[in-house]
Amino acid sequence: MIETEWLKRLRSRTGTELLGDDAAVIGDTIITVDMLTEGIDFLLGEVDPQWIGRKALAVNLSDIAAMGGIPTSIVVAVALPKSEGIQLAEQLYNGMEPLLRKYSLTLAGGDTNTWNQGLVISITVLGRVTPQGVLRRGGGKPGDQILVTGLLGGSILEHQFLFEPRIFEALYLNEHFNLHAAIDISDGFSLDLHRLSVESGLGATVYEKSIPVSPAAVQLSQQTGRTPLEHALSDGEDFELLLAVPPEEAEKLLALQPLRKRFNVTLYPVAELTPEPGLRFTDGTVLCPQGFEH
Amino acid sequence: MIETEWLKRLRSRTGTELLGDDAAVIGDTIITVDMLTEGIDFLLGEVDPQWIGRKALAVNLSDIAAMGGIPTSIVVAVALPKSEGIQLAEQLYNGMEPLLRKYSLTLAGGDTNTWNQGLVISITVLGRVTPQGVLRRGGGKPGDQILVTGLLGGSILEHQFLFEPRIFEALYLNEHFNLHAAIDISDGFSLDLHRLSVESGLGATVYEKSIPVSPAAVQLSQQTGRTPLEHALSDGEDFELLLAVPPEEAEKLLALQPLRKRFNVTLYPVAELTPEPGLRFTDGTVLCPQGFEH
Repeated sequence: MIETEWLKRLRSRTGTELLGDDAAVIGDTIITVDMLTEGIDFLLGEVDPQWIGRKALAVNLSDIAAMGGIPTSIVVAVALPKSEGIQLAEQLYNGMEPLLRKYSLTLAGGDTNTWNQGLVISITVLGRVTPQGVLRRGGGKPGDQILVTGLLGGSILEHQFLFEPRIFEALYLNEHFNLHAAIDISDGFSLDLHRLSVESGLGATVYEKSIPVSPAAVQLSQQTGRTPLEHALSDGEDFELLLAVPPEEAEKLLALQPLRKRFNVTLYPVAELTPEPGLRFTDGTVLCPQGFEH
Repeated sequence: MIETEWLKRLRSRTGTELLGDDAAVIGDTIITVDMLTEGIDFLLGEVDPQWIGRKALAVNLSDIAAMGGIPTSIVVAVALPKSEGIQLAEQLYNGMEPLLRKYSLTLAGGDTNTWNQGLVISITVLGRVTPQGVLRRGGGKPGDQILVTGLLGGSILEHQFLFEPRIFEALYLNEHFNLHAAIDISDGFSLDLHRLSVESGLGATVYEKSIPVSPAAVQLSQQTGRTPLEHALSDGEDFELLLAVPPEEAEKLLALQPLRKRFNVTLYPVAELTPEPGLRFTDGTVLCPQGFEH
């Protein structure tokens, strides 16, 4: 979750091109950081603190997944409200632990602070580049099909805390198939698709009929009055991957569904990259990128 | 700046020994994180925001210096008060820039958040291990002399924001001399000396007569009623290095003063490591480790 405007300024001042992806790559090392803040990313009284700890780590792992990297170690910095004390830190850690174990991560260090204000947790994750190299946002080609690794929309009901980062899925696909580009959906399908296509110098046609709308999007639409499809297109924090693959590879992937048996994950075709910039539906009407802008 | 109690628990649960030093070492990579919070580490209305940005980076660089490492890249996460906006981020960055340039650091990424509470800035610094290997807290031997790289005490008056991390000094000394152990003084001379000696399985005799008391400690003592020496012994955030070196090497270093011409830095002898645990003055009276406990 990267603040676009500030990063643009920094990018212009540091002359680095490292900042436009889900994570930075320095030699063989991938690095990414995400900070969650109380009242913005979670409400402390309404969410199990374990979920907060889990999410703080998982959002970073999703960035590593989008790069096709292997996560290796993490450092954790927290600002704890004085009223909560060290028990909260313990709960945050309990929430991280299953992911630490699942991905064999080293907890390499931390900085624990207490203060009189809200909870802040910032995690930095290091990863390793595989022999296949990293996946970038900017590798898409005209005609590439965009596949997504799961259902979209309504994440705010629960999925935003309990999603599974697509680490193993990305590694498997990147090893066995020809992937051109990837991004994880952190701020909303249409917004992140827009980012991938812009970084690739392209636009995209969205297959509105085959967008995999989640049951949560349907449920949420009953509260909001917006359609389930609208939620699927613009809700943030799905943390599924958008993958740009050549058409013949997409056909193969959709026929084989190689992630289904291994990870219980289905790939869905959701868009095609086009030489014309901007997002459009199949009937040519314009789709404005929507989602959560930082 | 590492919260001891929480880290102890984590250490016991992760089974890792990575957490007891100024920074963690993973293969050839050194990693450290520090978070500064408003009201605890600084008062936003009373300090130039550039100083805050500078300090947030410099405290991490001091940790890398204490490991004898070469800093290479950083990621920055901030939570900005909504009332301040992006200009504050810009100022924070302006404060970091001279250090980024001085140490040729890559700004590899960031996460910028806004919220309705205080400013939080968390920086992770990556570094590289030199062919000499890393300096540890636990490498001290009985009889080792403890040298310090500068004047102590009164840092709160200004030095805490404007100190120079001892990166080049540590690299130079580690390349040309036989150093056993190191730590940076973040929480107070006596507390950090205590940590180094405990990690080395030793205690220390403090040369109270040769402690280099800073003018700021003298100035501060006029406000507090405590002696300048007390300030030098227990004030936090000097960010000088304590180095444990064999006696003959200490003699050489104090005679040569190899840092003076190169970096305008003088080495002072401040203590000797002893087989008996605990800190004592030369007359045998006990010195209780004092400083800032997180």
